[in-house]
Amino acid sequence: MPENLEKFINLKRDLAEINLDPLQRGGILTPEARAALAEWGDGYSICDFCTGSMDRIRSPPVEDFIHEALPKFLGSDVVRVTHGAREGMFAAMHAICQHKDWIVADGNVHYTTVLAAERAGLKIELVPSSGEPDYAVSVEGYAEAFERAYEHKGNVSMAVLTYPDGNYGNLVDAKAVASVCHDYGVPLMLNGAYSVGRMPITACNLDVDIVVGSGHKSMASSGPIGVLGASEEYARTIFRLSPTKKNKEIELLGCTVRGAGLLTMMASFPTVVKRVNDWMREVEKARKFANKMCSLGIELQGDRPHNHDLMFFKAENLYKISQTAKKGRYFLYKDLKDRGICGIKPGLTRQFKLSTYLLTEEEIEKVLNAFDDIVNSHSTSDKA
Amino acid sequence: MPENLEKFINLKRDLAEINLDPLQRGGILTPEARAALAEWGDGYSICDFCTGSMDRIRSPPVEDFIHEALPKFLGSDVVRVTHGAREGMFAAMHAICQHKDWIVADGNVHYTTVLAAERAGLKIELVPSSGEPDYAVSVEGYAEAFERAYEHKGNVSMAVLTYPDGNYGNLVDAKAVASVCHDYGVPLMLNGAYSVGRMPITACNLDVDIVVGSGHKSMASSGPIGVLGASEEYARTIFRLSPTKKNKEIELLGCTVRGAGLLTMMASFPTVVKRVNDWMREVEKARKFANKMCSLGIELQGDRPHNHDLMFFKAENLYKISQTAKKGRYFLYKDLKDRGICGIKPGLTRQFKLSTYLLTEEEIEKVLNAFDDIVNSHSTSDKA
Repeated sequence: MPENLEKFINLKRDLAEINLDPLQRGGILTPEARAALAEWGDGYSICDFCTGSMDRIRSPPVEDFIHEALPKFLGSDVVRVTHGAREGMFAAMHAICQHKDWIVADGNVHYTTVLAAERAGLKIELVPSSGEPDYAVSVEGYAEAFERAYEHKGNVSMAVLTYPDGNYGNLVDAKAVASVCHDYGVPLMLNGAYSVGRMPITACNLDVDIVVGSGHKSMASSGPIGVLGASEEYARTIFRLSPTKKNKEIELLGCTVRGAGLLTMMASFPTVVKRVNDWMREVEKARKFANKMCSLGIELQGDRPHNHDLMFFKAENLYKISQTAKKGRYFLYKDLKDRGICGIKPGLTRQFKLSTYLLTEEEIEKVLNAFDDIVNSHSTSDKA
Repeated sequence: MPENLEKFINLKRDLAEINLDPLQRGGILTPEARAALAEWGDGYSICDFCTGSMDRIRSPPVEDFIHEALPKFLGSDVVRVTHGAREGMFAAMHAICQHKDWIVADGNVHYTTVLAAERAGLKIELVPSSGEPDYAVSVEGYAEAFERAYEHKGNVSMAVLTYPDGNYGNLVDAKAVASVCHDYGVPLMLNGAYSVGRMPITACNLDVDIVVGSGHKSMASSGPIGVLGASEEYARTIFRLSPTKKNKEIELLGCTVRGAGLLTMMASFPTVVKRVNDWMREVEKARKFANKMCSLGIELQGDRPHNHDLMFFKAENLYKISQTAKKGRYFLYKDLKDRGICGIKPGLTRQFKLSTYLLTEEEIEKVLNAFDDIVNSHSTSDKA
């Protein structure tokens, strides 16, 4: 039997006051979600109210949420809840593509898209990014990637656009990419892990056929949880029913998030709908922040002006400091932590990403002052 | 935009005091898990501490839990956390079996095993159960099922035993089934959704190659969460690494439960290890309960004497009452609810399952008194 088990209880998060990690900023629970977590925490509590199809539970109103609210919110004909964006992408690829098919994806693609494709036995042709400093992915690049895949005699059965990508926060013109994909007769899946729940995403207006979102990344939900929306045409295949088990969708293994996570997503939903409408304020906030960082010698990469709270910075001055600082390349992590700030990976100085999403003015001020302080105090001590 | 969103917040569970549903009894959170849920609820909080492989996070001690505690607990060489038993079964089938292969499974198999096989493109040959009243699955039945699959010219690449099954709570001799499977050169996967976390399960002692468990069903964890253990031989394939993304396991899409659920499983683990050792008390409790139900004319089906807390009953007397009761076949559900008891599906009277797992003596007494009362009050009112 395992021993010394006390170490697994009473574990604390021990975080700094302000967490700049882009993958955490959109997942902070609302007070309503926190209450749902306490109420519905046990096992898979929602199943007490199920009569065979989880998405059809009427009380609590899971059916209204999954069959009415989410489709309207996403602009998709059919939506289901998944274990996360990656699981949604795999489900769509596994259902729609044939083993050994090809998919085309943007060069800034999240690693989980690659894993989903590998798990489904698919090959990937990437649309290269322009590299430093813009890391831009072009719409025409999709057409060229389709052509390259055909040169391999590949059957291309899906395209993916990471919207925005998780490194630079770049937003490619999704509608234009969709148009190229449709010219080639290929459906476009939008990976909206960093957009669904942050900014307005309406799949039908963007002409995208499939969209995935992440509850833990951007919908103030306790993970793992995500959403998967599809147009009628592709939903038929993705959400096909079992030939032997009544009302059970094969690709979801019957049902997915059968616990508290779903109730947190529902409880946060009114707040999420509201915050999506306030998106431009977040963009303005990010732009102002980036300008001030620039004045400290820390330069924004990716789309400029930027259109998202996820930002990638290049800081030759911090890198220079790291070469002589006592703590070496860990100085930035430690200096920020001393000032109540975390979320930039330990050891990074020359380039790093962060997010200003939902930070208050005071918090932004605190972060900027911290960077100012760090840049200047080290310059001074260097000179001394 | 969606409207009337207030209905998604402040949702209460509205349950009776005692819940007899077998799928809920082992998932009730420990106080330690409840504290973990509150501490780690946000988004996917655990990722703050990840440097690329979730199962290698040292603080909190995820690495110790996944690489030391769980393998010892399950008697498996390698263990990973999954989204649940069904997701674990799919991962194992998808990794090990080839499209159009066959699997052999017990006739009492859970519907999710069938869905996992359908999702992986596999065909199933079932070992029939003996039917009423024992619903027994024989060890020799596995050999016969292998032979039938071969008659279809099928390549059989896995066998599954549901241990116990989720309808009758029957425990087939797993070691003997494993021996038959190995004679045919086929790995055996144990679906321990109702055993791992309730009773001692040591995969290597049972000679099973793969085992799945359910955190929400039987490990006092907030779902969806499960465990997947495998012997070295099969772990190599199931947990194979991506050729392109360093340290990422393809079949898990990198990582699975990246949130509070994992911390609840860890926090409940000391209690779970302890309760597994007290398993025979639960079996005694179930047997006593079944005997008393029998004296009320409500007969246990399945293994007798019974070896599990999940029990299936046949009640001709309750069925007879339903034919004249005012509330018809819903009388039992309502009569029990009036007495503070839920968990038997609304509308069932003639046969139903329930569990006595972790009920106190007082609660057991209350449940038995309720059945006594219901059987006798209706008999009296019938006579009146």
